[in-house]
Amino acid sequence: MTAEPDTTANLEVLHFAYHLNRSIWNMESGQQSSSPTREIRVELGSVTYPIYIGTQWLGGISRVLQRDARDLSHAMVICDASVASTFAELVRHSIDALGVRTDMCIVPSGETAKGVSQLTRLWDWMLTRGADRRSIVVAVGGGVVGDLAGFAAATYQRGIRLVHIPTTLLAQVDSSVGGKTGINLPGGKNIIGAFWQPLMVAIDTNTLGSLPRREFASGIAEIIKYGVIERPELFAWLEEHAAALLSRDAPAVTHAISISCLTKAAIVGEDERETSGRRAILNYGHTFAHAIETTAGFGRFLHGEAVAMGMQMAAACALGRGLVDREFVDRQRHLIEAFQLPTRWPQAEPKQMLVAMQSDKKKEHGKLRLILPTRLGHVDLVDDLTEDEIAAAILDPHQEGR
Amino acid sequence: MTAEPDTTANLEVLHFAYHLNRSIWNMESGQQSSSPTREIRVELGSVTYPIYIGTQWLGGISRVLQRDARDLSHAMVICDASVASTFAELVRHSIDALGVRTDMCIVPSGETAKGVSQLTRLWDWMLTRGADRRSIVVAVGGGVVGDLAGFAAATYQRGIRLVHIPTTLLAQVDSSVGGKTGINLPGGKNIIGAFWQPLMVAIDTNTLGSLPRREFASGIAEIIKYGVIERPELFAWLEEHAAALLSRDAPAVTHAISISCLTKAAIVGEDERETSGRRAILNYGHTFAHAIETTAGFGRFLHGEAVAMGMQMAAACALGRGLVDREFVDRQRHLIEAFQLPTRWPQAEPKQMLVAMQSDKKKEHGKLRLILPTRLGHVDLVDDLTEDEIAAAILDPHQEGR
Repeated sequence: MTAEPDTTANLEVLHFAYHLNRSIWNMESGQQSSSPTREIRVELGSVTYPIYIGTQWLGGISRVLQRDARDLSHAMVICDASVASTFAELVRHSIDALGVRTDMCIVPSGETAKGVSQLTRLWDWMLTRGADRRSIVVAVGGGVVGDLAGFAAATYQRGIRLVHIPTTLLAQVDSSVGGKTGINLPGGKNIIGAFWQPLMVAIDTNTLGSLPRREFASGIAEIIKYGVIERPELFAWLEEHAAALLSRDAPAVTHAISISCLTKAAIVGEDERETSGRRAILNYGHTFAHAIETTAGFGRFLHGEAVAMGMQMAAACALGRGLVDREFVDRQRHLIEAFQLPTRWPQAEPKQMLVAMQSDKKKEHGKLRLILPTRLGHVDLVDDLTEDEIAAAILDPHQEGR
Repeated sequence: MTAEPDTTANLEVLHFAYHLNRSIWNMESGQQSSSPTREIRVELGSVTYPIYIGTQWLGGISRVLQRDARDLSHAMVICDASVASTFAELVRHSIDALGVRTDMCIVPSGETAKGVSQLTRLWDWMLTRGADRRSIVVAVGGGVVGDLAGFAAATYQRGIRLVHIPTTLLAQVDSSVGGKTGINLPGGKNIIGAFWQPLMVAIDTNTLGSLPRREFASGIAEIIKYGVIERPELFAWLEEHAAALLSRDAPAVTHAISISCLTKAAIVGEDERETSGRRAILNYGHTFAHAIETTAGFGRFLHGEAVAMGMQMAAACALGRGLVDREFVDRQRHLIEAFQLPTRWPQAEPKQMLVAMQSDKKKEHGKLRLILPTRLGHVDLVDDLTEDEIAAAILDPHQEGR
């Protein structure tokens, strides 16, 4: 089914599809299918591309590629070590069976792979394998592989085609959609990169089966974010179906991913290169989250965990300003907690976090800009917060002291 | 004065401007001016930007920047070692006098600077100097610095603003126009890169004064190319004014640069990202040239020298096919020779060159495609040449054996 982004009608269609899908799933449970059940189109000024979503269909990726990728003659699968022998091999085998030349390169798991040394290793590998402008990079893994392989594709011969096959929930609902690619420098996360839109994003919920609990929950933090910034009905749906989602019930997961991709695609479609400010609402909770990650040391919290705490700090800021009421703050906190995500960081050092927030690349000329909620489903950019207001929110994100 | 690209009327205006400029020059000879005398607009689908051309005006660059660059707060001058203490310092000083923070980074001269190690050095330097999305990269030097600094600008925080100040004739008439940026890998020239359009290109013919004779002539090869592929009147003008151009007479140089930029801007405007094939005509002589550079070893010939020989080989191919007559071949040869550029390479090894041509990235799936002239001012893509035809053109580019 095809859904146009950002209309209430389509949300109703998708809501209906959730219940329909549920029955189909119950009938076919455990069966391997060969095609995705959902298609969401990302409509940008220059290009449009599909996000395919389904369950247990990756073995049939070659058929979709054959249809959508003109002159497919060489596929370079770049994958995370954790999925090399499973999903990446499934994808490689499927493409290989078409008679298309395939190569595979395994990237070590973890954020440290997203640096200059793995990037130059990929560049050299692509050249050695004779990649040309008709070759396709297929990135299989989480956000690290998507960003790294995406940047390699964006810069090889000034840009070759890219397919994202995200295998973590966080990558499926966030990093694979929107065209951001890049690497870290020792002194800065995501400091080097390019906007590079993929030919398609292919999501198979089956890849989530073996994801550790914390990593799965980390992805849900971004789904909650879409509810707060833009989709009150998604927020309410999450409140109602938390148990189904936590148990990774396939129709529930498919539904949550679909609405998330639909939401992000619509926002990105209005602001492809982060110039109009529209895309900034996606940073809800993220300025705090980056400061948490920086001061806690990378690796202590997962990104989604930091975002969960960051959103609660932003909500606390908004309450302090009178932008939202206590009910909003409590309701967001309870939803985050329902997914076993943290809502506060008792060890937070407001002074250190403020220094980190000042050097965040989203600041413009020294002014600290934060995305704060004004009601469920709506956020605003606020740029005149004092350090005291921010410190108060960091120390008491539940605003119990009020 | 402003000229719209690619109309005969504008060429007449520019032709008139050449004679007008000549008298102005004679009056003001040697005087420092503070603004450019020509403006050519590059009109692309997404953006439009100016190429400013003049003589002895770089000291006034800050005024132009102040007018065209919104929110200028930090300029990062990246320059070739050979112009560090002269033109780059002049530019840095001019911007500094505005009260804008400036930083300067010197890149070693020569093609080897265009690699991963200088790129990562620039990335680290930009981060250390606190570059953000409002910072501007100002690239001062030849094609190497323009490509390297341009790629650093294209990828820092997914792209920041860039000003090209090309100081060699080759960079002024070719590499600074069109938005190509990139670096080499040990196994491939320009294999990594991005399309990144500058905010402006600022050309001061005064930078050419100290250019070695061979380097100056190397730039003229590309000007001759524009005559052959698109501008018969430029070709005729070059025949008439070879002596003035060789003596680096400022109005003649300004005129040749202006028409060249106008021609390239019009072609690039029709095919920004090299997708429609239109831009391919700019490769006239270049597939041969790359093969000459590869087999001779980089550094033996300057790029323009290889292009001059390559164009003559392409003309010989065209004569062999009956696409042009002998008069065309001789006329092109005499013009190239008038600028003391080579028209043949007696040591050429056709077999080795054919291997290099096969691995050129412009080939598509093994087929060798060459841009060949059909008459003065027009070229076509020919993709069914045999190895024998190509070898004959390499061995006898003057076609004296016919």
